[in-house]
Amino acid sequence: MSMTERLLLHEYAASGNCYKVRLTAAIAGVRLERREYDIMTGETRTPEFLAKVNANGRIPVLQVGDRFIPESNAACYFVAEGSSLIPTDPFDHADMLRWMFWEQYNHEPNIATLRFWMRWVGVDNLSDLQRPQMPGKRTAGNAALQLMDDHLAGSQWFVRDAASLADICLFAYTHVAGEADFDLQRYPNVIGWIERMKGHPRFLAIET
Amino acid sequence: MSMTERLLLHEYAASGNCYKVRLTAAIAGVRLERREYDIMTGETRTPEFLAKVNANGRIPVLQVGDRFIPESNAACYFVAEGSSLIPTDPFDHADMLRWMFWEQYNHEPNIATLRFWMRWVGVDNLSDLQRPQMPGKRTAGNAALQLMDDHLAGSQWFVRDAASLADICLFAYTHVAGEADFDLQRYPNVIGWIERMKGHPRFLAIET
Repeated sequence: MSMTERLLLHEYAASGNCYKVRLTAAIAGVRLERREYDIMTGETRTPEFLAKVNANGRIPVLQVGDRFIPESNAACYFVAEGSSLIPTDPFDHADMLRWMFWEQYNHEPNIATLRFWMRWVGVDNLSDLQRPQMPGKRTAGNAALQLMDDHLAGSQWFVRDAASLADICLFAYTHVAGEADFDLQRYPNVIGWIERMKGHPRFLAIET
Repeated sequence: MSMTERLLLHEYAASGNCYKVRLTAAIAGVRLERREYDIMTGETRTPEFLAKVNANGRIPVLQVGDRFIPESNAACYFVAEGSSLIPTDPFDHADMLRWMFWEQYNHEPNIATLRFWMRWVGVDNLSDLQRPQMPGKRTAGNAALQLMDDHLAGSQWFVRDAASLADICLFAYTHVAGEADFDLQRYPNVIGWIERMKGHPRFLAIET
């Protein structure tokens, strides 16, 4: 994109949602500055962060000059604007958004949350409200991976025949689903797609 | 938009997610055919529906000719393509998407789910896994309404100074939040915004 304003990513590097934005920038060839917050010590819930960066207390937030874009998938869209990562055909474009909304509703709350609970919080530290939700999130996470695997049986990418933001947004938490004890070997088409993503000449790895 | 293909909405009319698409079509002046499914008797989980309409078993799905767009907010985007409901400035456009993703992650799973549990399923019929989640969803739903109210203290609409898809997608479940026993009187700016939405010359009411 042809932005002249400085782009600053407010982030926590190990978060898949933050990684999405970095991977989008890498593939789109956009320069991104970065500022790290420790989410485990509440650095995104300080009065200053809530007042200035994001009233929702979450990262990533993309700062554009002196304005802010919360929500990872919206930030990815801004970074990728005008690049080949966003299809121009109206149906393909809506199909891309469909997978991005699906990711936030059906995939992230299950796979990303289990990863966070198991690897950051620790199962022993979960609340009595959280722990009973683990089996449901396991089932829903596997259903999400199965739906992806079924879709990829018939195509190389999620939208038409090229990598788009849909692939980037779905890749972020899918390729580290093993950290939440999901067995990706059950989803061979997903594994093939992960390898295609990693083979992109501008691929950038997550930092954990 | 200038689509020549037939648009058919696969829906359950009382669903706020389905209403979003109808309201978008009304305001954008787009003709929509409709097909109703009874979600309470599993009509969206039949093998035929899963194979032909949406492997995710959910409505709404927008059918465009012989192709399908699941996910309400993606369907709204397709219907509104080219209309004034979608800002063209890249920042405003990403800001609109930010509210639409936020709606699916922070608003819908709390307010819409409580409405569904309380008015359709019935609190007495909730599972032992669902019932303990009610207080958390109540708290998160009120936090979402408060965040909206704070934003609307400084502006008439969610993005810049005109109604966009962000307003439509947030309106759908917000204006019926009372059906889930949320007290909208606590959020006067939200009430003012609801009245502005209802005052739109092409406003269309939900069917419940």
